[in-house]
Amino acid sequence: MKILIINGPNLNLLGKREPEIYGHASMEDCLDDLRKAYPDVEIEYYQSNHEGCIIDRLHKTGFSTDHKGIVLNAGAYTHTSLAIADAISAIKLPVVEVHISNVHSREEIRHKSLISPVCRGVIAGFGLDSYRLGIEALLKS
Amino acid sequence: MKILIINGPNLNLLGKREPEIYGHASMEDCLDDLRKAYPDVEIEYYQSNHEGCIIDRLHKTGFSTDHKGIVLNAGAYTHTSLAIADAISAIKLPVVEVHISNVHSREEIRHKSLISPVCRGVIAGFGLDSYRLGIEALLKS
Amino acid sequence: MKILIINGPNLNLLGKREPEIYGHASMEDCLDDLRKAYPDVEIEYYQSNHEGCIIDRLHKTGFSTDHKGIVLNAGAYTHTSLAIADAISAIKLPVVEVHISNVHSREEIRHKSLISPVCRGVIAGFGLDSYRLGIEALLKS
Amino acid sequence: MKILIINGPNLNLLGKREPEIYGHASMEDCLDDLRKAYPDVEIEYYQSNHEGCIIDRLHKTGFSTDHKGIVLNAGAYTHTSLAIADAISAIKLPVVEVHISNVHSREEIRHKSLISPVCRGVIAGFGLDSYRLGIEALLKS
Amino acid sequence: MKILIINGPNLNLLGKREPEIYGHASMEDCLDDLRKAYPDVEIEYYQSNHEGCIIDRLHKTGFSTDHKGIVLNAGAYTHTSLAIADAISAIKLPVVEVHISNVHSREEIRHKSLISPVCRGVIAGFGLDSYRLGIEALLKS
Amino acid sequence: MKILIINGPNLNLLGKREPEIYGHASMEDCLDDLRKAYPDVEIEYYQSNHEGCIIDRLHKTGFSTDHKGIVLNAGAYTHTSLAIADAISAIKLPVVEVHISNVHSREEIRHKSLISPVCRGVIAGFGLDSYRLGIEALLKS
Amino acid sequence: MKILIINGPNLNLLGKREPEIYGHASMEDCLDDLRKAYPDVEIEYYQSNHEGCIIDRLHKTGFSTDHKGIVLNAGAYTHTSLAIADAISAIKLPVVEVHISNVHSREEIRHKSLISPVCRGVIAGFGLDSYRLGIEALLKS
Amino acid sequence: MKILIINGPNLNLLGKREPEIYGHASMEDCLDDLRKAYPDVEIEYYQSNHEGCIIDRLHKTGFSTDHKGIVLNAGAYTHTSLAIADAISAIKLPVVEVHISNVHSREEIRHKSLISPVCRGVIAGFGLDSYRLGIEALLKS
Amino acid sequence: MKILIINGPNLNLLGKREPEIYGHASMEDCLDDLRKAYPDVEIEYYQSNHEGCIIDRLHKTGFSTDHKGIVLNAGAYTHTSLAIADAISAIKLPVVEVHISNVHSREEIRHKSLISPVCRGVIAGFGLDSYRLGIEALLKS
Amino acid sequence: MKILIINGPNLNLLGKREPEIYGHASMEDCLDDLRKAYPDVEIEYYQSNHEGCIIDRLHKTGFSTDHKGIVLNAGAYTHTSLAIADAISAIKLPVVEVHISNVHSREEIRHKSLISPVCRGVIAGFGLDSYRLGIEALLKS
Amino acid sequence: MKILIINGPNLNLLGKREPEIYGHASMEDCLDDLRKAYPDVEIEYYQSNHEGCIIDRLHKTGFSTDHKGIVLNAGAYTHTSLAIADAISAIKLPVVEVHISNVHSREEIRHKSLISPVCRGVIAGFGLDSYRLGIEALLKS
Amino acid sequence: MKILIINGPNLNLLGKREPEIYGHASMEDCLDDLRKAYPDVEIEYYQSNHEGCIIDRLHKTGFSTDHKGIVLNAGAYTHTSLAIADAISAIKLPVVEVHISNVHSREEIRHKSLISPVCRGVIAGFGLDSYRLGIEALLKS
Repeated sequence: MKILIINGPNLNLLGKREPEIYGHASMEDCLDDLRKAYPDVEIEYYQSNHEGCIIDRLHKTGFSTDHKGIVLNAGAYTHTSLAIADAISAIKLPVVEVHISNVHSREEIRHKSLISPVCRGVIAGFGLDSYRLGIEALLKS
Repeated sequence: MKILIINGPNLNLLGKREPEIYGHASMEDCLDDLRKAYPDVEIEYYQSNHEGCIIDRLHKTGFSTDHKGIVLNAGAYTHTSLAIADAISAIKLPVVEVHISNVHSREEIRHKSLISPVCRGVIAGFGLDSYRLGIEALLKS
Repeated sequence: MKILIINGPNLNLLGKREPEIYGHASMEDCLDDLRKAYPDVEIEYYQSNHEGCIIDRLHKTGFSTDHKGIVLNAGAYTHTSLAIADAISAIKLPVVEVHISNVHSREEIRHKSLISPVCRGVIAGFGLDSYRLGIEALLKS
Repeated sequence: MKILIINGPNLNLLGKREPEIYGHASMEDCLDDLRKAYPDVEIEYYQSNHEGCIIDRLHKTGFSTDHKGIVLNAGAYTHTSLAIADAISAIKLPVVEVHISNVHSREEIRHKSLISPVCRGVIAGFGLDSYRLGIEALLKS
Repeated sequence: MKILIINGPNLNLLGKREPEIYGHASMEDCLDDLRKAYPDVEIEYYQSNHEGCIIDRLHKTGFSTDHKGIVLNAGAYTHTSLAIADAISAIKLPVVEVHISNVHSREEIRHKSLISPVCRGVIAGFGLDSYRLGIEALLKS
Repeated sequence: MKILIINGPNLNLLGKREPEIYGHASMEDCLDDLRKAYPDVEIEYYQSNHEGCIIDRLHKTGFSTDHKGIVLNAGAYTHTSLAIADAISAIKLPVVEVHISNVHSREEIRHKSLISPVCRGVIAGFGLDSYRLGIEALLKS
Repeated sequence: MKILIINGPNLNLLGKREPEIYGHASMEDCLDDLRKAYPDVEIEYYQSNHEGCIIDRLHKTGFSTDHKGIVLNAGAYTHTSLAIADAISAIKLPVVEVHISNVHSREEIRHKSLISPVCRGVIAGFGLDSYRLGIEALLKS
Repeated sequence: MKILIINGPNLNLLGKREPEIYGHASMEDCLDDLRKAYPDVEIEYYQSNHEGCIIDRLHKTGFSTDHKGIVLNAGAYTHTSLAIADAISAIKLPVVEVHISNVHSREEIRHKSLISPVCRGVIAGFGLDSYRLGIEALLKS
Repeated sequence: MKILIINGPNLNLLGKREPEIYGHASMEDCLDDLRKAYPDVEIEYYQSNHEGCIIDRLHKTGFSTDHKGIVLNAGAYTHTSLAIADAISAIKLPVVEVHISNVHSREEIRHKSLISPVCRGVIAGFGLDSYRLGIEALLKS
Repeated sequence: MKILIINGPNLNLLGKREPEIYGHASMEDCLDDLRKAYPDVEIEYYQSNHEGCIIDRLHKTGFSTDHKGIVLNAGAYTHTSLAIADAISAIKLPVVEVHISNVHSREEIRHKSLISPVCRGVIAGFGLDSYRLGIEALLKS
Repeated sequence: MKILIINGPNLNLLGKREPEIYGHASMEDCLDDLRKAYPDVEIEYYQSNHEGCIIDRLHKTGFSTDHKGIVLNAGAYTHTSLAIADAISAIKLPVVEVHISNVHSREEIRHKSLISPVCRGVIAGFGLDSYRLGIEALLKS
Repeated sequence: MKILIINGPNLNLLGKREPEIYGHASMEDCLDDLRKAYPDVEIEYYQSNHEGCIIDRLHKTGFSTDHKGIVLNAGAYTHTSLAIADAISAIKLPVVEVHISNVHSREEIRHKSLISPVCRGVIAGFGLDSYRLGIEALLKS
């Protein structure tokens, strides 16, 4: 069984950027931990700063029958991309929206997610552990 | 180690109410499952339809050193109770906000949470499994 | 056959408070008149200033098969209590929303009712006669 | 004693239109029932799709001393006609605003009534029985 | 087969009014061209400056089985008449909303159409050719 | 030289209606005074409660070369009729918007005029003398 | 009998500034014409770019019994000065608000006047003739 | 002579909670100081986290003739409880609204008080000294 | 003569996605039909999920003298891409905005198009036939 | 020790203006009372209708080490002057905002204070006694 | 050649006020540096806390043919003074709007400038160097 | 020392597009002029219509120690791309936001910049000279 994790814009900088918000751990460490914690799950990873590439990837994997679902941290596109929301709503696989920080305690513009209504559920504020919780949620669904 | 689960207004009706949204499982079944899944954690449960009682309970447990944290499903008070938000921000223990349904795909008034900014994080949309994910989040924090 | 009348916050002061808006008649007189006018209907009465108590009472009576429905004047909670709206939507009995004054000719904040969308219907502006019209509406439904 | 019922735009289609909202009964049946139920009241009926005609009719009857009042279902003009509101406020007779459906559970634009502030009271959501309740309200006032 | 074209307020002035927006051609020329272009379609035409008359006409033709549909340019009523929207939603025939100018490049108030949600579709900005496109749309539907 | 005065909805009740706002003088007295004050001007008068009729009359007179202009008190249509605004903008004659009361000291909805931007100018708040000032404005323009 | 005309900020530039809006005539010419037209009225004139000075002058003249009233073109302060509005409401003399241009056909910010609700009435859009109409209005009141 | 001080939700934590905002002094110390400073005034104290209990207490004391008035710090209910506002407006005694912190320099939601319009006056931002100032205000009124 | 059809994000899924909204026909069938219906027009087709690619393509074709115009279904970018709007406004060829569904009967966010003001016109709601109507509109312009 | 009282626009009219709001006492009487009540405090007084003069005076006294603080009733500038707010935030002395009337029970525009966030605290609604309470607040701080 | 620098309210405190935002350098040092850097330009300087004085000065210099333009830091008046905007639009010389701090990263109210639309351009966020950039911009224009 | 200039969407058309707004000079001429004016600065140039590519480039250069900073004209992405704002906030180099036109005198949607709060400063309205001023600002910082 597979699960795809998609990271959106600027999340390639994780561990380098604004550590007072995101901590110092890198996404690579996080993926290593997840693969150890879930040895029976093939965890794929995709990151892009391009809205269109995220849509393409959602389309490519979204109809797969080998996948349990998709964990998506769309970064800033969470709040501006109706096109990603449409992609989520068009595909077959469930998508879990995750955020590293508690977006609700940040600026106003980050309080509204365009993708939440079409995701299975939302997990936000637990640092890199949000990804693990997203996988947990998919495995139980 | 203890964890307190608090359920807000109308959640005493779980399993009886609008099953097309919440499913048929009762909170009792859910608590049984959680206690089996986490035998080392003492899971306390409190439900009230009274905003003031929820505040009282947050105060009572919120400074405890025996607890790892609180999982709170504030129901409709999520969207109207600044007083519960103040209680969360006043206590010492971390609080994880959970919702059974994906509040973001429901009516507009349920898109804004007054308590999210002062909670550790938010988990919404995974049915009763949201409670388990809340406990997971607390155990790892 | 029974009908329950619930009165919300400050309505225990009826007859004592702002008579230029509500007139001088008390709720007791009103109930007497109703019981005389509908001898075949057992008219129960409940008043509370506590949002949680109103929810508790809606739960307690709301699944009864002896009742024709509930007449609810939620007072100021009409405009602030999503939790009462959720309770109305969760129970089985029809609820008729009534108001003594014409809320639409008062301040802006009283123009929006959170409970109207989940009530059977709304009756406002007829003084204490609004309660009788609420009963009339339930009896015919 | 007379009471005038005024129906606004599209209400000539009652019984033919969107029966999932309004039911199948026609206004004619409704008037028959009302005339039987209130043999001592002369119930006049006027329907028009023209905002101006409704104003003209309010003027014509609104100063009558033979009438107890007017029951007005202004249909969509409820939400867009300040001119009808001005007419109601200019005449002497009390006007009761009625709606067949629960306008508050329909689209946003139907939640705001321009005429409510100048009507005696409002009755909404009881199907054709709303007209009867409107007459009841006038007779007791 | 018949198609009815309805023109709303001020469109009787077409060819006389603000030619920098609408051009110099008259509605009569337009109808001649359409009748030549669609010899098998009986094209009826109705214009009124009265909201009520447009509703009356929608009712009169809207249940016809001889008509393929209605092409409606409601002019300024597009943006203010919920009653016309209700009429469209009540009748059986499909209605195509057309506009001569590109309403979206004009003032803010013309960006919101009350009738679009209940029309089959919308065509705007092609001058008098918008009427032909409306007919095309009906013939293919 | 001619000037047309148009009065909108409910202004046929002038002198009978809400005298605390409009005073007790009737429109007839007002017209008599104006005709005496301006013996060289033929003062035409038109009143209607119908939006469509006001548009028709604006069209009929609006291209006249015998008229100096139009004085329009559109009543409540001032605030709701984009169609009358379009008519004013389509005709050749200048239109002066007048109001008897100071609309800016009344309810919020009366603070916004849809017709002001297309009128020559606005005069409000001087009782029936507003009509005389409207004529003065036209004569000097 | 005296009348005071007050001109607010930038109106000292009249005749020099944006002639496509205000025309080429100067305020001096305008005052000459007015004094000729009303030989029995002593027309005082005051201009200032200072909000405080306008308030001072309103106080100084506003309780005079020799004056019939004040004609005030507050320029941009019309839309930003609640303090001038308070001054108008504090003094005894009636104040007529005038504007040279039709403020309602200019930018959004000029559509809302803070002083209108406390003025006797409003006259806008007639060029420098607005001042004469303001005097006319005061003389008749 | 008596004065009642009512403290709302979370104010039982005073001295324990967010000391960077509220300081370290407890309410008990504050009451001691007040009773020393005003030996002739019997200072009653009531605290509750329950909206309904605050209303009940306002009713109980609000018609007393032994009391000079009520000093109310409604905490977060200041901003969400229309029911408490109604209670204040229903009772006879004057109520002074006090706040420990300067609510206007905190989050947006704390800038709007639902109870201010019905209180005698408002005092905010002086730490625990706000209670003393509230008593001062009542004694002089 | 050539016409370019551009499809935006997720429209590569046409025929696979949400058939209750878009039907089952694929874009390929649609293009075949159009090429048969307009044998004299060379119909080019371009689809991309990338905002930047759509802009690039608008630039590439937008200054061509071999093309009659562009038919653009920008999908979700219709509502979020000011950059595409700028591209349309920068190029020489006319662009017709088309939508398969009636966007005005869907969610609020789809009611506002950023590109409408700079397009020649808009066609929405006729299923895949919207593309044919777009071509018709270009051929007549 | 000194305290400066600053009064803003129109407050020179105190005792002459709208006595139904402000009472009949003059500011002079008020200052006399204060000087008697606080013989050890040198109470300076400054009034101006000029926003700039108030800023100048705040600068002049605001860095003084002889003063305990400033009591400021900025009148209407409270709601429109960001520049006075900046001055308060720039100076060293604490400023207490006072209002004679309960601004929250007056018009909407008076509910928002631009200066509250930078003042030490706010006192409103106690008539001229608000000044005394402001001094009390400064003396205890 | 001359250039006038105008500084608005509170900018006389530069170097004394909130140094964490503006740094410690004074305006005098800044002017010295500018005069050294541009020996061929006569740099005039004017500061006032009075909105009216800034308007007066804009009028006085704004028609000069000896000046290249005006560099204006209107301070808080940037966001509240439509009258200064009118003055800028009335004069002949170009005006460059400058700000020391990045106003867009400060409070909401500072994000909207009333004067930007009528200035030649805007420069913000470069500390006192913003003045030099303003001069650079004028010299090249 | 290096400086990178980034141009966003549609700016590859500079000199070809809407010359009434941007003038006829091309970006190539502009870069030539800048390189001549600043011979000691290596001026890099990057343009893309792709949001993702702009983010990629900001990441690539944003941590460089050879660069003084970045001059960014994000075109329409200025107003819609929170992801670019996040990229700017994540990198080390200062970014100066520039615009060729005065965005504040264009449409409403261009008045709000998402990137301003995280840029060093903003320069807008000086045509292609805005780029030179951006470099000036970086060199002095």
